[in-house]
Amino acid sequence: MMIKTPTKFFFVKGGSEGYMPLNAFDGALMKAGVGNTNLLKMSSIIPPHCQEIEPLPLPQGTLVPVAYASITSQNPGEVISAAVAAAFPENRDHAALIMEYAAKGSKEEVETTVINMAEAGMKMRGKRIKSIKSVTVEHKVEHCGAAFAAVVLWD
Amino acid sequence: MMIKTPTKFFFVKGGSEGYMPLNAFDGALMKAGVGNTNLLKMSSIIPPHCQEIEPLPLPQGTLVPVAYASITSQNPGEVISAAVAAAFPENRDHAALIMEYAAKGSKEEVETTVINMAEAGMKMRGKRIKSIKSVTVEHKVEHCGAAFAAVVLWD
Amino acid sequence: MMIKTPTKFFFVKGGSEGYMPLNAFDGALMKAGVGNTNLLKMSSIIPPHCQEIEPLPLPQGTLVPVAYASITSQNPGEVISAAVAAAFPENRDHAALIMEYAAKGSKEEVETTVINMAEAGMKMRGKRIKSIKSVTVEHKVEHCGAAFAAVVLWD
Repeated sequence: MMIKTPTKFFFVKGGSEGYMPLNAFDGALMKAGVGNTNLLKMSSIIPPHCQEIEPLPLPQGTLVPVAYASITSQNPGEVISAAVAAAFPENRDHAALIMEYAAKGSKEEVETTVINMAEAGMKMRGKRIKSIKSVTVEHKVEHCGAAFAAVVLWD
Repeated sequence: MMIKTPTKFFFVKGGSEGYMPLNAFDGALMKAGVGNTNLLKMSSIIPPHCQEIEPLPLPQGTLVPVAYASITSQNPGEVISAAVAAAFPENRDHAALIMEYAAKGSKEEVETTVINMAEAGMKMRGKRIKSIKSVTVEHKVEHCGAAFAAVVLWD
Repeated sequence: MMIKTPTKFFFVKGGSEGYMPLNAFDGALMKAGVGNTNLLKMSSIIPPHCQEIEPLPLPQGTLVPVAYASITSQNPGEVISAAVAAAFPENRDHAALIMEYAAKGSKEEVETTVINMAEAGMKMRGKRIKSIKSVTVEHKVEHCGAAFAAVVLWD
């Protein structure tokens, strides 16, 4: 093993306007409480026996593995949403699966899709689901907006 | 150095259908044997003296650096392929170069391209090639499919 | 904390032609001096009290966290540029913010934009800026080109 396996996780989300798409994304990270960290995007598993915790104030500049969905748009009036869902198996010795989805559309539409995705992923694994937890953020674009939802892994 | 440098590597590949593109990608990861890990995508070097091993059952939820190619498609009937090639230098004290390529097209077409890419990359380095190893997967899309090929780095 | 927080950083940049877009990107990495490493793309903070150093010859195959902008183009004659800017706060106990931007256009245009982005990001944080440092590379495409600019984090 090259990098320590996470033992804790928490959900975050945020939406923002910004000067350019990356600024809007940065603003969404700030609202989510992770804007002063170094996010490493990864695919998308919560290790077995990992514990959910309340969002932490992470040290500035820390490298943080995250599974996230994001979307930016420069179409004024457009509604965009980003969501993540984690499906936890009945067998607690098995990993939970994270799915990410972001699209034009309402919170309800995008959250429904990401939950269906998490269910489909567990079905593919032949695992029975104990519970699904999801977070979704919806943002209505003024001139340049972003939506961001994530599962942050931590130790 | 912030993260331990890998000492081992192995090749994997997989193709799959899925409910949404990310599910198809997830299915391809499952077929490749890395679907329950946290992949960190990186650019694309095998360190000197790194040893090829048989694919390992990686611990669930582990963070795993990988160089990968992937493609998803929602066009029924379309043939998609993903490939990686590693070019090993004659001088074993020099790193090997990984190239990734994924596109519409057959296994043969995509594998030829990725091998040419690996050769071009070593030529740019002025390094003579001892050998090239590549893996390619082809997938014919039913409704929503993915192809994935990777070099997994490990320690 | 799962991965050691960086204590050093440096700026790099490069532009190149190549056989395929990934080869051009690889060539740009080579010109930037990081072509034989494994880059992990991250969002985009320089931790407080991190020290700028001269670019180092990094060990081959090392995993290296970087914030980068890149662009590739296969349109002969097109001018492409990639830039990063780091905005350092007056309060040295606060992190510096990195912004990345790559687009068609001249060095001047792209550098102006990325500096504006860094200023906007610090304004969003309510932080007064002590200084901004940026690097930009411009590349005129012959047949297949890439531009790459980055802040490399190191320890």
